[in-house]
Amino acid sequence: MFMRIDKLLTELPEAKKPDPNAAAALQELLGGKYGEMSTLGNYMFQSFNFRNKTQLRPFYSLVSSIFAEELGHVELVSTGIAMLNNGPGNQKSDVDLSKAPFHDMQGTALPGAFLSSGGGATPINSNGISWNTDMVTTTGNLMIDLLHNFHLECGARIHKLRVYETMTEPTGREVCAYLLVRGSLHAHAYALALKKLTGVAIEKMLPTPNIDLDRIPECQKYLDEGKHRRLYRFSPDDYEEAAGIWSNDEVALPGDPPGQLEVVDGLPEGGKIPELAGNYGAFAPDYAPEEIFEIASKLYKKSR
Amino acid sequence: MFMRIDKLLTELPEAKKPDPNAAAALQELLGGKYGEMSTLGNYMFQSFNFRNKTQLRPFYSLVSSIFAEELGHVELVSTGIAMLNNGPGNQKSDVDLSKAPFHDMQGTALPGAFLSSGGGATPINSNGISWNTDMVTTTGNLMIDLLHNFHLECGARIHKLRVYETMTEPTGREVCAYLLVRGSLHAHAYALALKKLTGVAIEKMLPTPNIDLDRIPECQKYLDEGKHRRLYRFSPDDYEEAAGIWSNDEVALPGDPPGQLEVVDGLPEGGKIPELAGNYGAFAPDYAPEEIFEIASKLYKKSR
Amino acid sequence: MFMRIDKLLTELPEAKKPDPNAAAALQELLGGKYGEMSTLGNYMFQSFNFRNKTQLRPFYSLVSSIFAEELGHVELVSTGIAMLNNGPGNQKSDVDLSKAPFHDMQGTALPGAFLSSGGGATPINSNGISWNTDMVTTTGNLMIDLLHNFHLECGARIHKLRVYETMTEPTGREVCAYLLVRGSLHAHAYALALKKLTGVAIEKMLPTPNIDLDRIPECQKYLDEGKHRRLYRFSPDDYEEAAGIWSNDEVALPGDPPGQLEVVDGLPEGGKIPELAGNYGAFAPDYAPEEIFEIASKLYKKSR
Amino acid sequence: MFMRIDKLLTELPEAKKPDPNAAAALQELLGGKYGEMSTLGNYMFQSFNFRNKTQLRPFYSLVSSIFAEELGHVELVSTGIAMLNNGPGNQKSDVDLSKAPFHDMQGTALPGAFLSSGGGATPINSNGISWNTDMVTTTGNLMIDLLHNFHLECGARIHKLRVYETMTEPTGREVCAYLLVRGSLHAHAYALALKKLTGVAIEKMLPTPNIDLDRIPECQKYLDEGKHRRLYRFSPDDYEEAAGIWSNDEVALPGDPPGQLEVVDGLPEGGKIPELAGNYGAFAPDYAPEEIFEIASKLYKKSR
Amino acid sequence: MFMRIDKLLTELPEAKKPDPNAAAALQELLGGKYGEMSTLGNYMFQSFNFRNKTQLRPFYSLVSSIFAEELGHVELVSTGIAMLNNGPGNQKSDVDLSKAPFHDMQGTALPGAFLSSGGGATPINSNGISWNTDMVTTTGNLMIDLLHNFHLECGARIHKLRVYETMTEPTGREVCAYLLVRGSLHAHAYALALKKLTGVAIEKMLPTPNIDLDRIPECQKYLDEGKHRRLYRFSPDDYEEAAGIWSNDEVALPGDPPGQLEVVDGLPEGGKIPELAGNYGAFAPDYAPEEIFEIASKLYKKSR
Amino acid sequence: MFMRIDKLLTELPEAKKPDPNAAAALQELLGGKYGEMSTLGNYMFQSFNFRNKTQLRPFYSLVSSIFAEELGHVELVSTGIAMLNNGPGNQKSDVDLSKAPFHDMQGTALPGAFLSSGGGATPINSNGISWNTDMVTTTGNLMIDLLHNFHLECGARIHKLRVYETMTEPTGREVCAYLLVRGSLHAHAYALALKKLTGVAIEKMLPTPNIDLDRIPECQKYLDEGKHRRLYRFSPDDYEEAAGIWSNDEVALPGDPPGQLEVVDGLPEGGKIPELAGNYGAFAPDYAPEEIFEIASKLYKKSR
Repeated sequence: MFMRIDKLLTELPEAKKPDPNAAAALQELLGGKYGEMSTLGNYMFQSFNFRNKTQLRPFYSLVSSIFAEELGHVELVSTGIAMLNNGPGNQKSDVDLSKAPFHDMQGTALPGAFLSSGGGATPINSNGISWNTDMVTTTGNLMIDLLHNFHLECGARIHKLRVYETMTEPTGREVCAYLLVRGSLHAHAYALALKKLTGVAIEKMLPTPNIDLDRIPECQKYLDEGKHRRLYRFSPDDYEEAAGIWSNDEVALPGDPPGQLEVVDGLPEGGKIPELAGNYGAFAPDYAPEEIFEIASKLYKKSR
Repeated sequence: MFMRIDKLLTELPEAKKPDPNAAAALQELLGGKYGEMSTLGNYMFQSFNFRNKTQLRPFYSLVSSIFAEELGHVELVSTGIAMLNNGPGNQKSDVDLSKAPFHDMQGTALPGAFLSSGGGATPINSNGISWNTDMVTTTGNLMIDLLHNFHLECGARIHKLRVYETMTEPTGREVCAYLLVRGSLHAHAYALALKKLTGVAIEKMLPTPNIDLDRIPECQKYLDEGKHRRLYRFSPDDYEEAAGIWSNDEVALPGDPPGQLEVVDGLPEGGKIPELAGNYGAFAPDYAPEEIFEIASKLYKKSR
Repeated sequence: MFMRIDKLLTELPEAKKPDPNAAAALQELLGGKYGEMSTLGNYMFQSFNFRNKTQLRPFYSLVSSIFAEELGHVELVSTGIAMLNNGPGNQKSDVDLSKAPFHDMQGTALPGAFLSSGGGATPINSNGISWNTDMVTTTGNLMIDLLHNFHLECGARIHKLRVYETMTEPTGREVCAYLLVRGSLHAHAYALALKKLTGVAIEKMLPTPNIDLDRIPECQKYLDEGKHRRLYRFSPDDYEEAAGIWSNDEVALPGDPPGQLEVVDGLPEGGKIPELAGNYGAFAPDYAPEEIFEIASKLYKKSR
Repeated sequence: MFMRIDKLLTELPEAKKPDPNAAAALQELLGGKYGEMSTLGNYMFQSFNFRNKTQLRPFYSLVSSIFAEELGHVELVSTGIAMLNNGPGNQKSDVDLSKAPFHDMQGTALPGAFLSSGGGATPINSNGISWNTDMVTTTGNLMIDLLHNFHLECGARIHKLRVYETMTEPTGREVCAYLLVRGSLHAHAYALALKKLTGVAIEKMLPTPNIDLDRIPECQKYLDEGKHRRLYRFSPDDYEEAAGIWSNDEVALPGDPPGQLEVVDGLPEGGKIPELAGNYGAFAPDYAPEEIFEIASKLYKKSR
Repeated sequence: MFMRIDKLLTELPEAKKPDPNAAAALQELLGGKYGEMSTLGNYMFQSFNFRNKTQLRPFYSLVSSIFAEELGHVELVSTGIAMLNNGPGNQKSDVDLSKAPFHDMQGTALPGAFLSSGGGATPINSNGISWNTDMVTTTGNLMIDLLHNFHLECGARIHKLRVYETMTEPTGREVCAYLLVRGSLHAHAYALALKKLTGVAIEKMLPTPNIDLDRIPECQKYLDEGKHRRLYRFSPDDYEEAAGIWSNDEVALPGDPPGQLEVVDGLPEGGKIPELAGNYGAFAPDYAPEEIFEIASKLYKKSR
Repeated sequence: MFMRIDKLLTELPEAKKPDPNAAAALQELLGGKYGEMSTLGNYMFQSFNFRNKTQLRPFYSLVSSIFAEELGHVELVSTGIAMLNNGPGNQKSDVDLSKAPFHDMQGTALPGAFLSSGGGATPINSNGISWNTDMVTTTGNLMIDLLHNFHLECGARIHKLRVYETMTEPTGREVCAYLLVRGSLHAHAYALALKKLTGVAIEKMLPTPNIDLDRIPECQKYLDEGKHRRLYRFSPDDYEEAAGIWSNDEVALPGDPPGQLEVVDGLPEGGKIPELAGNYGAFAPDYAPEEIFEIASKLYKKSR
């Protein structure tokens, strides 16, 4: 079972104007083979299909808490995409529909993002191809699944880096920077899990790709907070056994600010979920939102 | 952000033997167009892409809390599939691999379920086709999205019914029965949301398909508990505004046990997540689980 | 069985120049989930798979005649795409192929439209993804299928609107406008079918999205002709029982020109199918069309 | 524009019992790369995208009238699939849903055919894979398109033959036999079109594969009627120029009953569209069909 | 550039009868995510896209020679599939096509294998899903690509093991056994490449999954020959620099017969490519093979 | 079995700057339905699945040697794509990652080419869609397979022509020109194979499309060398029986430089495989290539 808290993992700066090509680039981090739908899907099905959960509790707990975090990553990158596609919006209903007000949406990298989803995020990559089951590995052999996950997080890191390197918009840069810090931690976590199973110090391969996060300005605040050392349980009462892997005798990677690794109860503080104001012409609401709000508010008050 | 609680929405009876064809049928309810990945994916992206969240809070809250529940549905049906594919398992390592111990896995409905995933669930339908973005509608026009969702839940209901009608195994029947009760509630919820927006009493179309749940024996305990009347918030502090729609002036559908509709804080009680014991020959673990458990337990104790 | 009449449902203005990005946008209305291949495919398979055709004749007739119309919609939007991609064409064979005469086709939204199909329409959406079976719902439960169809036509309407809002070329605007009028009628028809089955006045949700067609200048002539009130049988002798649903006690929607709904025998008058003149360099015909024409004409005359 | 006539191209014998594996085999002829959706899709888009229609009228007419026939082929094979999946049906509503009345649908070749479509046909092949745009060739170069079509019809012929060779059910055998006769004619027609363009007597390659139709008992009546020599226009007034290709100086292929080739006005006589009686348990109608029929009949009478 | 030698990597025992379900299982090792098309596709595109080939010659050479070997793996597994589907064949032309001679092909795991390909291999997995680009990783970052490859070979190993465990037919068992030995070597090779780059002794994780090959009787002859220690260059003159990685200071893995690793010039000896005799009814050859053979032989002799 | 020679089939001019849109166009010739992956995949599986190899040796040899050549075509077009995407590269590590150094990669035709593959080639078409099994025909009926191949090469020719016509970059033009010459030869070869089987002079349809290669300047040197008349065996000892088809009594096509057709032993001379220098920012190598080179060189020397 799952609960949702109505916050984002971090606060995203507003997009000053619609930038559908930046949003399309960010789609690679949502629906691409090395995107957040993939990290989510892999850890989710590995966790559901996990054999011998009791005997292998620390490993099950590690995969399960990272899976829970990935839900928030999907939310973060989806929100970033919707913000970039949308810009500040324009809800005035007196738009002249006959003047091709959205002509600029032709010839963008993913025209369907506007035409079908009104700028919303969908589980596709930057070329428009759907996320799918071929991007999920769940063999049930713990070693292979962990090795896959380690490779997946390293691969995801180079994708995040490249998307960042195309990005001038602060909204998208923030998404990439946050995901780079947390993805680096996940790579580290799977490396340590493999080390506990095999004795091989595979974490010495990190960071892969070999770019320290201090070259990304937007990462600094997250490193200063220790976000590269803190594994959140993302559960009120469960998964603390992940500390058997991500434990206090392990420390941050050499290129990052030093410190001991910690398993943290619950959740990070997070940031506000943005209000997304639509464009009247694109959404054509069948109602006046204010009016509906008023009716619904009354009903809600009555219901308490 | 999200949290996971290490419980299933309901307890599932153990599978007495591997039944890969029953598991394949259940895949329709996981990865099919009208399966739980679809209800999840639709409400998830609609919630992330929602325009005017503040002004339309009751609707945003309704979609968001149902989305959070759907995560648990995906978990429930995935667990059922893994249980049916797996049966009781056999972890003895002295299996003779050269005697074709898994010959029976040839010619099943989805041979890849064993060959690739060791019997684990994956996001595919009963014909083996991947879940994908074509199964997600997120237009951003609230009316269309709700209408889609209402149709989706009615469509999902006939799929659940048909899968149930093929099923002799108690594990799979329980999954179907639970999903039928909760899916019926979701259809009802979206109907009421549409009624609040338009004044049209579309909930009078329910139940669609026209099968009362009292014809399904496994549904009775859920109806007796009122699971058809209780919308859980699946959030510690958020989404209570869903009560503006699912409120106390609305009552259960005529064919179901009578009572007022309620928004319930937090979560249902839920059941135990099953231990899945693998087959040595199929999983070939690279370690002795007991040994690893001992090492990891020590590390964990040290970490506290 | 089917017959084809060599006319378009409406006449389309010529495209003055190739506009592949406009054509790509229009592909959303051909091969997208809410495009004409989808409305066609859904009603076609629902009609072929229809249970109890005799007892439910009015419903079978309604789905069947709308399906026959959708064939013409696929033709109309395909023709529009080919016209926009093609422009006026250039059949002179003295083009210098070595001077990159089609360099402008690089970097368009769908380069394959030129490279593979010479600008012809294909069953893909605006992101280049194929139409496929996931876009077809044919449960055989009449209520669910009709509910699906009602949602599909409403969803199609917002797609048509958005494509229109990107479009400056008259060819594409005309396609959108025609489809908006007829799609609105189809939404209305499925609403009435649901009302006959359930008594719920679901047509009061229309128009969804909430944009009256009088805001689209190109729609006016079609409204003036009553194209929003006339359901053509698209059959010489069959499907008149659709009048049990689209009958004379029902009237046009409030925002449209008033009048009674009518079932009309046969076909609308329609317009000319355009001659598409290709580019020599892109089509490289293996023959001189005039010469072939002469030979074939003689053979044809001989054959009569 | 198109019209539908409520008849099948030929009459199909009733299926005595549900035979989902036979229906799955027949799906190869509906949604496979060499199935009827492919012949339809290829000729449809070639016809819509045709360059220089006036100058190349006989070729345009040939492709267009065969395309119109293919609509009827899709209808025929879809109907066969639905009949085989369905069998005689059982509409009694007192079925005990809790006794797994459809257990036999587990482990069939395409379980989703029952679970999702209630036994209806969908555009997939015998392995469950969707028909898609990769199966459409529309280069706009007439020679290449005709050459493709010639190869497609020869390829389709071996698929039809193989499906026939697996088939014991009369319903499915009849579908294959009918399609074999007409497909052979279409291969012949494209061969003659190529001959008119190039002078190469490519029709001498026929029949490919090298199986005379007199080895298929169900083909005899169609050969006796001359169905291998008659190209129907499938249009009330258009496409007679196809006679420039399929003309009276050409004769039937050597292995078939001799005679001159003819272009025939209009349509073949055809057979009855079967009533498909569903199973109550699988379709769960939301209404009593008789009752609805009565209401609708009254409305219809009133409407005339 | 490439050359083909008309031999198989190893000789395969004949299939005594058609066994389409065994062939379908083997398809997982051809077209599955962890099958030979994937190992081929990954190393092929990595080799073509390789950056800094000169400076990183040993790594380029390693990937390139393994890629060349994978071509032979695709050939081996394809041949095994065709043999299992085909059995001994029956070329007599007096088969009675009207007696459903291939009725047994209905209800197999992949009916399309017979219906469309006459039992030939195609690039699909055991569920019928196509191999595709999502199964190719070519980031251009050498570490990530090698890490991916290492995980891929370990994952491939558990797939090979599971397919073997379903297999009673000697043809299929031989394919699995050969691929297990060579796949183990490839995993070892990528491990050593990673070690040279990073100093991490990742080869200590092998074998993964943890099944020594001496538990597979069919593997013994290959181990005895040293096939687990010999990296063939699969090139007349190139790629010997792979010896910088697979060099003489490295030895076989502990569970395998001991010995030094060697780079071997050229090719293994290999075995005969089997003659596949088709079934007349399924292939319907348009010619008498003997006759054609005679004509062609004469032409060939004349041509020398 | 296969061997690789570390050379390209022809030498490609360097790309002076990154041109991702030209590279995207060239992808049509790699992963499109009529691209080199398709010609490769068709002939590869036809060769592996070939029935009666001994009796039909000249045909088997023809398909097999062309298949071996296609491996080199895939290599050539992949190399061209990587060169065009990459340009001259920049390996300096002091790039400022935070200044969006790859902003220009947003809004290109295939953003994923950079974001995921760092500009490497992948098996997709110009719209980003994966190559897949639907593009492979292997019926096992020799006539149909050859007819398919003949149509495929003609279709490929118009694709190559159109890509060429969009191309200003010499790298891409050279690829197209080379493929046009060799593809024309392959079409000719399949035509002759069909003629030997059937007596129909189908090669008289060539060239299709009807563009003589002397209109393409980059083709001249290949025509002068006789590359349109020489079928290489691409094998050290096998496939010479192809001379039964491509023999000395057949001559070049009328529009090409005259001469007899020849089967040539072994391989063409070929050109250099280009060094591709990456961009530091995009590849972030985890090592200094020079250093690694030195270590590996020492190891390699030691190994000899």
